[in-house]
Amino acid sequence: MKKQLLIKNGVVVNEDRQFKADVYIQDGVIQKVGEIDQSSLPNDCPVLDVAGKLLVPGGIDTHTHFQLPFMGTVAVDDFDIGTKASIAGGTTFIIDFVIPSKGESILKAYDQWRKWADEKVNCDYSLHVAITWWSEEVSRDMEILVKERGVNSFKVFMAYKGSFMVTDEEMFHIFKRCKELGAIAQVHAENGDMVHEGQKKMLEMGICGPEGHEMARPEEVEAEATNRAIMIANRVNTPVYIVHVMSKGAAEVISKHKKEGKKVYGEPIAAGLGVDGTHMWNKDWRHAAAYVMGPPIRPDPQTKEVLMDYLASGDLSCVGTDNCTFCADQKALGKDDFTKIPNGVNGVEDRMSIVWENGVNKGKLTPSEFVRATSSAAAKIFNIYPQKGRIDVGSDGDIAVWDPQATKTISASTHHHAVDFNIFEGIQVKGIATHTIVSGNVVWENNTLKTVKGSGKFVPRKPFGCVFDGIVTRDELRNELLRKVDREPYTGPVIVLDK
Amino acid sequence: MKKQLLIKNGVVVNEDRQFKADVYIQDGVIQKVGEIDQSSLPNDCPVLDVAGKLLVPGGIDTHTHFQLPFMGTVAVDDFDIGTKASIAGGTTFIIDFVIPSKGESILKAYDQWRKWADEKVNCDYSLHVAITWWSEEVSRDMEILVKERGVNSFKVFMAYKGSFMVTDEEMFHIFKRCKELGAIAQVHAENGDMVHEGQKKMLEMGICGPEGHEMARPEEVEAEATNRAIMIANRVNTPVYIVHVMSKGAAEVISKHKKEGKKVYGEPIAAGLGVDGTHMWNKDWRHAAAYVMGPPIRPDPQTKEVLMDYLASGDLSCVGTDNCTFCADQKALGKDDFTKIPNGVNGVEDRMSIVWENGVNKGKLTPSEFVRATSSAAAKIFNIYPQKGRIDVGSDGDIAVWDPQATKTISASTHHHAVDFNIFEGIQVKGIATHTIVSGNVVWENNTLKTVKGSGKFVPRKPFGCVFDGIVTRDELRNELLRKVDREPYTGPVIVLDK
Amino acid sequence: MKKQLLIKNGVVVNEDRQFKADVYIQDGVIQKVGEIDQSSLPNDCPVLDVAGKLLVPGGIDTHTHFQLPFMGTVAVDDFDIGTKASIAGGTTFIIDFVIPSKGESILKAYDQWRKWADEKVNCDYSLHVAITWWSEEVSRDMEILVKERGVNSFKVFMAYKGSFMVTDEEMFHIFKRCKELGAIAQVHAENGDMVHEGQKKMLEMGICGPEGHEMARPEEVEAEATNRAIMIANRVNTPVYIVHVMSKGAAEVISKHKKEGKKVYGEPIAAGLGVDGTHMWNKDWRHAAAYVMGPPIRPDPQTKEVLMDYLASGDLSCVGTDNCTFCADQKALGKDDFTKIPNGVNGVEDRMSIVWENGVNKGKLTPSEFVRATSSAAAKIFNIYPQKGRIDVGSDGDIAVWDPQATKTISASTHHHAVDFNIFEGIQVKGIATHTIVSGNVVWENNTLKTVKGSGKFVPRKPFGCVFDGIVTRDELRNELLRKVDREPYTGPVIVLDK
Amino acid sequence: MKKQLLIKNGVVVNEDRQFKADVYIQDGVIQKVGEIDQSSLPNDCPVLDVAGKLLVPGGIDTHTHFQLPFMGTVAVDDFDIGTKASIAGGTTFIIDFVIPSKGESILKAYDQWRKWADEKVNCDYSLHVAITWWSEEVSRDMEILVKERGVNSFKVFMAYKGSFMVTDEEMFHIFKRCKELGAIAQVHAENGDMVHEGQKKMLEMGICGPEGHEMARPEEVEAEATNRAIMIANRVNTPVYIVHVMSKGAAEVISKHKKEGKKVYGEPIAAGLGVDGTHMWNKDWRHAAAYVMGPPIRPDPQTKEVLMDYLASGDLSCVGTDNCTFCADQKALGKDDFTKIPNGVNGVEDRMSIVWENGVNKGKLTPSEFVRATSSAAAKIFNIYPQKGRIDVGSDGDIAVWDPQATKTISASTHHHAVDFNIFEGIQVKGIATHTIVSGNVVWENNTLKTVKGSGKFVPRKPFGCVFDGIVTRDELRNELLRKVDREPYTGPVIVLDK
Repeated sequence: MKKQLLIKNGVVVNEDRQFKADVYIQDGVIQKVGEIDQSSLPNDCPVLDVAGKLLVPGGIDTHTHFQLPFMGTVAVDDFDIGTKASIAGGTTFIIDFVIPSKGESILKAYDQWRKWADEKVNCDYSLHVAITWWSEEVSRDMEILVKERGVNSFKVFMAYKGSFMVTDEEMFHIFKRCKELGAIAQVHAENGDMVHEGQKKMLEMGICGPEGHEMARPEEVEAEATNRAIMIANRVNTPVYIVHVMSKGAAEVISKHKKEGKKVYGEPIAAGLGVDGTHMWNKDWRHAAAYVMGPPIRPDPQTKEVLMDYLASGDLSCVGTDNCTFCADQKALGKDDFTKIPNGVNGVEDRMSIVWENGVNKGKLTPSEFVRATSSAAAKIFNIYPQKGRIDVGSDGDIAVWDPQATKTISASTHHHAVDFNIFEGIQVKGIATHTIVSGNVVWENNTLKTVKGSGKFVPRKPFGCVFDGIVTRDELRNELLRKVDREPYTGPVIVLDK
Repeated sequence: MKKQLLIKNGVVVNEDRQFKADVYIQDGVIQKVGEIDQSSLPNDCPVLDVAGKLLVPGGIDTHTHFQLPFMGTVAVDDFDIGTKASIAGGTTFIIDFVIPSKGESILKAYDQWRKWADEKVNCDYSLHVAITWWSEEVSRDMEILVKERGVNSFKVFMAYKGSFMVTDEEMFHIFKRCKELGAIAQVHAENGDMVHEGQKKMLEMGICGPEGHEMARPEEVEAEATNRAIMIANRVNTPVYIVHVMSKGAAEVISKHKKEGKKVYGEPIAAGLGVDGTHMWNKDWRHAAAYVMGPPIRPDPQTKEVLMDYLASGDLSCVGTDNCTFCADQKALGKDDFTKIPNGVNGVEDRMSIVWENGVNKGKLTPSEFVRATSSAAAKIFNIYPQKGRIDVGSDGDIAVWDPQATKTISASTHHHAVDFNIFEGIQVKGIATHTIVSGNVVWENNTLKTVKGSGKFVPRKPFGCVFDGIVTRDELRNELLRKVDREPYTGPVIVLDK
Repeated sequence: MKKQLLIKNGVVVNEDRQFKADVYIQDGVIQKVGEIDQSSLPNDCPVLDVAGKLLVPGGIDTHTHFQLPFMGTVAVDDFDIGTKASIAGGTTFIIDFVIPSKGESILKAYDQWRKWADEKVNCDYSLHVAITWWSEEVSRDMEILVKERGVNSFKVFMAYKGSFMVTDEEMFHIFKRCKELGAIAQVHAENGDMVHEGQKKMLEMGICGPEGHEMARPEEVEAEATNRAIMIANRVNTPVYIVHVMSKGAAEVISKHKKEGKKVYGEPIAAGLGVDGTHMWNKDWRHAAAYVMGPPIRPDPQTKEVLMDYLASGDLSCVGTDNCTFCADQKALGKDDFTKIPNGVNGVEDRMSIVWENGVNKGKLTPSEFVRATSSAAAKIFNIYPQKGRIDVGSDGDIAVWDPQATKTISASTHHHAVDFNIFEGIQVKGIATHTIVSGNVVWENNTLKTVKGSGKFVPRKPFGCVFDGIVTRDELRNELLRKVDREPYTGPVIVLDK
Repeated sequence: MKKQLLIKNGVVVNEDRQFKADVYIQDGVIQKVGEIDQSSLPNDCPVLDVAGKLLVPGGIDTHTHFQLPFMGTVAVDDFDIGTKASIAGGTTFIIDFVIPSKGESILKAYDQWRKWADEKVNCDYSLHVAITWWSEEVSRDMEILVKERGVNSFKVFMAYKGSFMVTDEEMFHIFKRCKELGAIAQVHAENGDMVHEGQKKMLEMGICGPEGHEMARPEEVEAEATNRAIMIANRVNTPVYIVHVMSKGAAEVISKHKKEGKKVYGEPIAAGLGVDGTHMWNKDWRHAAAYVMGPPIRPDPQTKEVLMDYLASGDLSCVGTDNCTFCADQKALGKDDFTKIPNGVNGVEDRMSIVWENGVNKGKLTPSEFVRATSSAAAKIFNIYPQKGRIDVGSDGDIAVWDPQATKTISASTHHHAVDFNIFEGIQVKGIATHTIVSGNVVWENNTLKTVKGSGKFVPRKPFGCVFDGIVTRDELRNELLRKVDREPYTGPVIVLDK
């Protein structure tokens, strides 16, 4: 017998439009969208009547770090808890990052992450892989990851000097390899040298608290690196994706290059769209430290408005979270030195409500643009569209029932994270997922999770997605422009050099 | 018996993705998209096997002027010939402009245009209405047009001083009225006073030929008016659509405002994307005059590249043509004075191939972005999506079979226009419509038209389309920002004025 | 016997550098600058030992409205009090505006202003003339003003609909006339139609207090008009000067055009550099009303920072004040309707200290740049350099002794204006004029004025100043670019029109 | 007896204005400027009657490389020939670069350069010093150079990977050291890694000729590095000077940062303002190779126009040349591989005429702005103003007699360089130095040089020039903004880490 679900009386919102419809899902895949005569279905088909609420594609969080070993400790949201929190917020697909140590085999690291995740995930997921060092072996293994392991995106760090940071030269070679393999290059864009110098300066000045974090690496440090990464990607002629765009300056840089026709994609995150960085000046150390992540959330309260404007205009593409959570006792590793505070914030649960609240409820995003920003654009960029990111016949049965009138107040006391703090504490959002359907199962309703640990699947992603459309043509046209001159050889004198 | 068509072995390209599929159309409406078992269809269903060619939504030309009475003569492409030319190029829907004279009833003018069109159109169409004067009556009639006649877009002219041009004040009131009615405001953006002064100057300097046309109204005259129109629309808080964006300066203005979150849409046209304005300096007067339109095609050869980049990034939205054709003997009304040359060029037939050639074949547009630019975006903006602008179940059976490998050389000797000149003469395009299907009928194949005059229908368009999403919210938020101060009344002295 | 003054032990600050020097003035003109051996001078030469303080050229306020009849009343700072206040702040030259009514002879108005001023001024002055209507007579009289009355600058208003406002067409013709005469065109840049509509809207919403003033005419209304004025001036190819640049948007527009090589000059004012417009939301009506001027002082607190940055980079040129003061009982004409509040603020006394405080004391301006901004640039633009705006042999003996360490707190209780309010109330400035020397006389010292009413002279200004350098060349090069095509006449058929 | 010169009937042009005057020079220093009664001078005073020609401050070339050992050979214009060529073009002061090898003592290198120059220079000169490596010793020696050897400017290279190139980290430390010492940081801004990769690519593609040079390191490679250098300088809060700004992109970057209040200065050069890089595609290898320098002269013919516009607006500051000349047989070291062509072009002789021709004769620069661009701005930035860069009492007697009507055609056959090619060959300029006066001696007249080898002096330059004005204030204000939070220490639990 087939697993079924009929969703009645919804308003389907896809990125291109919205319309009234029922949705019928069987064995995890959407079979029908439209007015559905219930009598045409098996008798025992469960029915969820959503009474006019919106049906949006389950959210895609492009950027999580579940149970990441980092800065001497391990992120507390593991793949179980993390995906539960996702689901409670309407997100049904996450892409986590494999982060090998310098020198570590990227294949081995990948296997480790798969193991961690496969046992625990409550919804489907996929994996980006960070390239933290460069060698023949890494180059070879990238090919294996792409061709055999379902990876089509690799991230480099321009920050974290001494650990993950790569040089411009390495970045160039990694981008070239990405291009050959049809994988999109991702970049953490901050000038690592300047971050390092800024940190030293703060500590020398006796600024050891969380407030030192942002001042050590202000906006221009991010904007510069963003510009540099895009230039290098353009030298290679390969698409580039800037993770966690946190500042007006960085967003402006992306917009400028995009306008010139470059294939560049920017990812704002829930934290950057939802709060400002003034919290790092909070009198309560624990509160302040909870907001420490890199690049920093900017203290300028206009930043989140501007990032949302860029998201609305399409100059920024899709919303992630960089969900990487540490409890107070972990953050406390840096109690006397902010550079030792484990970097990371929550977001995976609240991302969709934050985008709705600050986007749709501000008249900046239409509901369809909300869908584009929270799932469809990501699905296209990472080449899993329309399996994910759309409610349509043949797409996976991952759906959030969205009530634009329902409200909730975000709080650590009610959230589903393992972490003991929520950076959105106290924010009231209007617009929440009342139900979340994962693979055709209603796993979140009445504020209750009914998820099944380990039930999610790894979704392999194929290379050469739509972001690569036109790359070959561009190469050809560029090469045509490389006008070589046919000349008579120079036959005149050449000076003789004394040695 | 039902009218049917099965298209086999296509690659459907919609704005969001492309995929292999068959398409089955019945009574003008698409019934199935996907792998279709022919045996499930009636025996007599005609089959068009496209052998792997692309199927794109029939093109939408947002801007035509068929049989327009203008500058003392009448455009030669009438609604019959004009729509035939459209179809031969893969365009299956056009939106023409009703242009009342100053003082003329806009309802009467609308009726006139309907009559002209209904008798002749070979495909579906719709009508924008120009507002060339302002009065209580016009305001009232706008409501009738919106509520009873299927109009949701009104255009004003900032140029054509002394005839169509409106003042800033009138424009403000027309925009307000558009907003109340849920109709999008369209603008021909050139500073009419400066055009007028520029023309006088050229004639005084003895520059009477077509080359005077552009020099009389250079780029800055267009960019300024574009900026002004967007500001005024923003004062009103209503969406604005700039017709025929012809210059880098104007496009940059649109992009800047869009980035700031304003609801502004820009329409490049085939002429601006396909050729440059140096033709107006051609030694042959007839050749030169053929390129005269307003705003002028810019002589800068980079302009068409830049406009395409803006189209690719989404800062410009959809492509029209301003197809408004005059033969040499008509253009000759201005043989001694360029200001008397009837303004207008062809485009409706070649639009899609020009966009493909200069967009897709340059690596600037993906095939999906081509669809967005040539039909989907227009359908959304003018609120006829997904009836038009998409290949999907329930959409109209308007489809172009697109062969990206087929080539043709554009020429007046082979085109389907009534006009005796083609501004794209000699340009070879790779990527053409081998078949065009209108309402489920194959009316263009083997280079032959099988259209039926008068068979097209007027498609009414409803107000308050998606471009209005968020407008109410924005008004509310703006009004909240209008912080009135509660004060004690001022009770001090007031000077007494001597009269 | 000659009137003399020796200033000992100063540090002369000119726009190009600073250096230690004594200054000797005789009969109102500087005779020596450098180390001066007192024994070389007549025995009776008075000596002012400034003990290492700075000597800066007496300030030039480019924009005052003393005793202006406006909005039903008359500004209370007349030419006596106004110039006293100037002198108390280190400003020794002001340029006021003749503002004829619509239809009034501009010559007659000029004579009126001369009469008002000549009897009262305590320092030298000059006059701009506003052109508030257009006719053959006005055109003719402009020539007389330039050739016989010492006027080289004419202002137009794009705002004040129904009274001073001119159309784009009129503006074009006025600019052309300015160019022929070698006079610089000045513009009050706000879109008057939008101001009018904004005011109506506020009143309709019941917002009748001073806070309605800014909301009725926000930044974009100013930025748009600025852009339009510059475009029109560029069509004419004549230098243009934007008076009172009050917003980031307008400043950005000026900067953009300047970078493209256009001859455009922007004038920030003391109010815009010194305070923000949030005062208009003050609970005390009298306080709020005191800040009403047009274009409005912007509520955004960043605006004054940004305007100072543009002043530092040279994208804005010189600082005026728009000093036009009305007492509470005058402002009270608009107690129930902000549109009736006489527009205007103080500034002439505090301008230099405000620029020093927010410029030099913020590390944004060097002392030399302070001089450029407060006198030299104005003197050049209005063609009275180096008579004014420099401390050099042959220059007028107008000098401010500037103590960068001295402080004062600005207050209406101590200022020298007639007005009963000071918009800078309570601001502490460090850097003030301890002495002011007018025409070689120390007329301000020990906080005491020793001015002589009527002692100032009208300074005629010659046309074709340095802002016109290159204009003829540009015209020639532009005309060369107007490439006329030599063609065979068109001899083909021409359609015959039915009449 | 004193060495004297009276220049009669000149029009003195300084950066602030022009005026008729005679100039009297004694012992190398200007004693009088104005109408001079010859009878007041000694009888034997030689007189140069310039009959109304312009007198401009002798030009300052901020960027020369005379007799530089580079890329295996030595630049052929040595300090004798180089300064002769300068003088023949109206330039009377040059600043050359000491370029130590990696690891070499910068003091030793300085001494070497002094020795080379002192024996040969025909006019005054000064020295910048390049910092090509970083160590305690270098840091210490920088102090000696500043405090004891008259150096106030140090250059770093972001290009020349493997030889001169420094890392971001080194650059940061060098900038910090510059700031401590009051020396301006100079930067050769190209991304050296990308240059290197670009060169490899070209050679791999078989593009070995000079045309490969620009394609290997296009505009974006320069613009990116410019942006990075300015950001790093801003982190340090120290003034930065970008040498040889060669592209629109780099100039735009500088302009953007300047507008934001940063202390950044850009130096276009004669080559970039006078020609375009299409010459590198010339069929004659020798011709093509002659244009090879880094960053490359851009092929886009608009570049030189745009750079001049930026120079006119003040966004670029002063004009150098990068004069570094190699004969054909030297360039031929790279006959089979463009990466081995010694980089460098001429310019020192033609700089002033090129700026006049493309600036003043195009209506872009006024004569005063020409002076600013060719001498005054440089003199201020490098802190030798008004000794150099101005015609005034007390300034050095270095003057060019400028005839704006005289013309010449630039040619290698008539120039005064040692090099066998002139990149401006065939360009006719209108506006040349008919006489050049060095230290009060007429050393160039009637097309004849009367220079004295070794007669020029090294001019030491003091640190903390006007470019440092405000730096301390900015530091203070920035530090105030570093808001440290006073908190109770965190006393909660801290996780214990397993080791």
